[in-house]
Amino acid sequence: MKIACLQEYLAQGLSAVGRAVAPRSTLPVLGNILLASDEARLKLAATNQELTITCWIDAEVKDPGATTVPARLLGEFVSSLPKERVELALNARTNTLNLKCATYEANVKGIDAEEFPPIPEVGDHALASLDPTLLHEAIGQVAFAAATDDSRPALAGVLMSFRGESLTLAAADGFRLAVRKIDLAEPVAEGLDIIVPARALQELARLLGDQEEPVRISATPNRSQVLFQLKNVELVSRLIEASFPNYQQIIPTSHATRVNISTKDFQNAIRIASFFARDASNIVRLQITAGEELTPGRVVVQATAADVGDTVAGIDAVVEGDGAQIAFNAKYLADVLGVITTAQVSLELTSPSRPGVIRPVGAEGYTHVIMPMHVTQR
Amino acid sequence: MKIACLQEYLAQGLSAVGRAVAPRSTLPVLGNILLASDEARLKLAATNQELTITCWIDAEVKDPGATTVPARLLGEFVSSLPKERVELALNARTNTLNLKCATYEANVKGIDAEEFPPIPEVGDHALASLDPTLLHEAIGQVAFAAATDDSRPALAGVLMSFRGESLTLAAADGFRLAVRKIDLAEPVAEGLDIIVPARALQELARLLGDQEEPVRISATPNRSQVLFQLKNVELVSRLIEASFPNYQQIIPTSHATRVNISTKDFQNAIRIASFFARDASNIVRLQITAGEELTPGRVVVQATAADVGDTVAGIDAVVEGDGAQIAFNAKYLADVLGVITTAQVSLELTSPSRPGVIRPVGAEGYTHVIMPMHVTQR
Repeated sequence: MKIACLQEYLAQGLSAVGRAVAPRSTLPVLGNILLASDEARLKLAATNQELTITCWIDAEVKDPGATTVPARLLGEFVSSLPKERVELALNARTNTLNLKCATYEANVKGIDAEEFPPIPEVGDHALASLDPTLLHEAIGQVAFAAATDDSRPALAGVLMSFRGESLTLAAADGFRLAVRKIDLAEPVAEGLDIIVPARALQELARLLGDQEEPVRISATPNRSQVLFQLKNVELVSRLIEASFPNYQQIIPTSHATRVNISTKDFQNAIRIASFFARDASNIVRLQITAGEELTPGRVVVQATAADVGDTVAGIDAVVEGDGAQIAFNAKYLADVLGVITTAQVSLELTSPSRPGVIRPVGAEGYTHVIMPMHVTQR
Repeated sequence: MKIACLQEYLAQGLSAVGRAVAPRSTLPVLGNILLASDEARLKLAATNQELTITCWIDAEVKDPGATTVPARLLGEFVSSLPKERVELALNARTNTLNLKCATYEANVKGIDAEEFPPIPEVGDHALASLDPTLLHEAIGQVAFAAATDDSRPALAGVLMSFRGESLTLAAADGFRLAVRKIDLAEPVAEGLDIIVPARALQELARLLGDQEEPVRISATPNRSQVLFQLKNVELVSRLIEASFPNYQQIIPTSHATRVNISTKDFQNAIRIASFFARDASNIVRLQITAGEELTPGRVVVQATAADVGDTVAGIDAVVEGDGAQIAFNAKYLADVLGVITTAQVSLELTSPSRPGVIRPVGAEGYTHVIMPMHVTQR
């Protein structure tokens, strides 16, 4: 193998695939990056066997070939090089990759490319084409609500549900549910549900960065793997083979109280309350008062920790319906308020023991449901 | 106690004193900030019993008094408040501090101010007056070379040596020595040596920030404590009562080789070498070749880790005297190159087993000595 490319492209490519590396695996080759010539390009790939990221960069291929080298060392070395041409040459006998750039040179010991796990074949029967900006936003609004443990496999993933002209993403961890619907560029022929590990979608969101081209999504016929094709980058993830709970029935269809409140003021009040709540099971209490003819409605945010103290903040709000009292986990409120980009947010409540529904005001398609916490009345 | 002040001043004051808090002490009051009225100001103080930082902010004192409250909670709460007036009121019976700002309110349980350790009295017989910018730079260039363990107490501190019109700071950890000399605004009447804990000086440097007024330094007559007076802030530290090694005799007085090299290029070559050196006792080898009539001198930086690979980089340099080979710890080179602000740096060598001397080129007053590492020749 003898290949030359620009330092910038190589550094970007290594950064793109790097998050799929499994540095502490018992299989040392999983801590390596695959470098392989692919016609007139250099292919870089990394896998942790659940998630595989592949990237192609423009290169001058003088002599085709492939090897794998330690990801961390290669990434650090390349990112410290000047923005010039990098020459890569493999000594196949010793499996040592020689890199030269300006006055810098290194020899890095590799592992034979034959030992690198094969990249799963998904084929290219695109299921749908997705707008990268919408997909990026939807992942940000949904994936954090997935469970971080694997006790119920379906909940560690995000349901992607394709129906006609729309894609709905949904994630839930038993305490909260996030649902976001986005438009598809072209309608899908038949409905399809897949569950993608939340971590894979978060890596996809990172790769979407400032890409402008549509993202193509494909799945294997047996629905075991999914492929996302970006410009010069592909991400393959295993799919979670489980059935996702029927989340629609969790979303309340009516409410007794509806509050419209400044997202920023609500977020700041929740942050302040959380400093006290962290010593008290993260409980924040909301007290909602309907307005009168001349006074606005009000949301009072309270937290109390027995040994520490207490805090209270009042925020003017538009309150429709009855007054209400309810308690939530401060973290769950902070998480959802952090992904809402509209100036106002609405909160719908039914009773202190029924879930609350949070939605951006003036933007369609996002619904967040949070279970309340049970607290003894003071 | 009933005091009002601006949120910005209070947040700045808490940030200034906060680094002296001892949050995990067995004495809970050391995790608190002292708040006390002081005529028409609010005094804030924190101490870990080695280091005490006190700060005064403008305030309206309606009713004098004092208390202590948990530093972390108070700091987080205050820094999240809007930039408005904060009202502080102490309920002396319950030792609870009530804070109000805009629509936010909190009650924080405190510990009686009587339990807060007394702030050491140093008196105000200033030894000297120091330029804050020079002092800030000198601390940055010297304090990192102090030992981080206490096996030899003097080496955990920085020697501050006042003589006539100059102050010399020196720190050493047995492997390296950093010395910086700065001018005093006014000569001192008699010579004085004190050893200040490196950590205290690093906190002082942080507080110097963008202060423009001279810093006054005083010590107790028995030389057990030192006081640095800044604008509105005072730092008191214990002094290390030990004798500092005679560092002058460590600085070589002659050399066989002198190299002038680009600080930035040398720093980058050391960084790249360190990725390989970390698996090989951090050893980087320098090979220095004198120039010929038509070719410049050259410094070649090498590192080799048996299981990983090797790297080599060549940098053009002006070499006076003989060629040379020497090995250093990559971290020590990286540390000193990181605090040199001149474009060129000089390296003086005598033999592979004798220390090297690094100085900025074109700036007076800074000397750094590094012991070499013994490596078997390849």
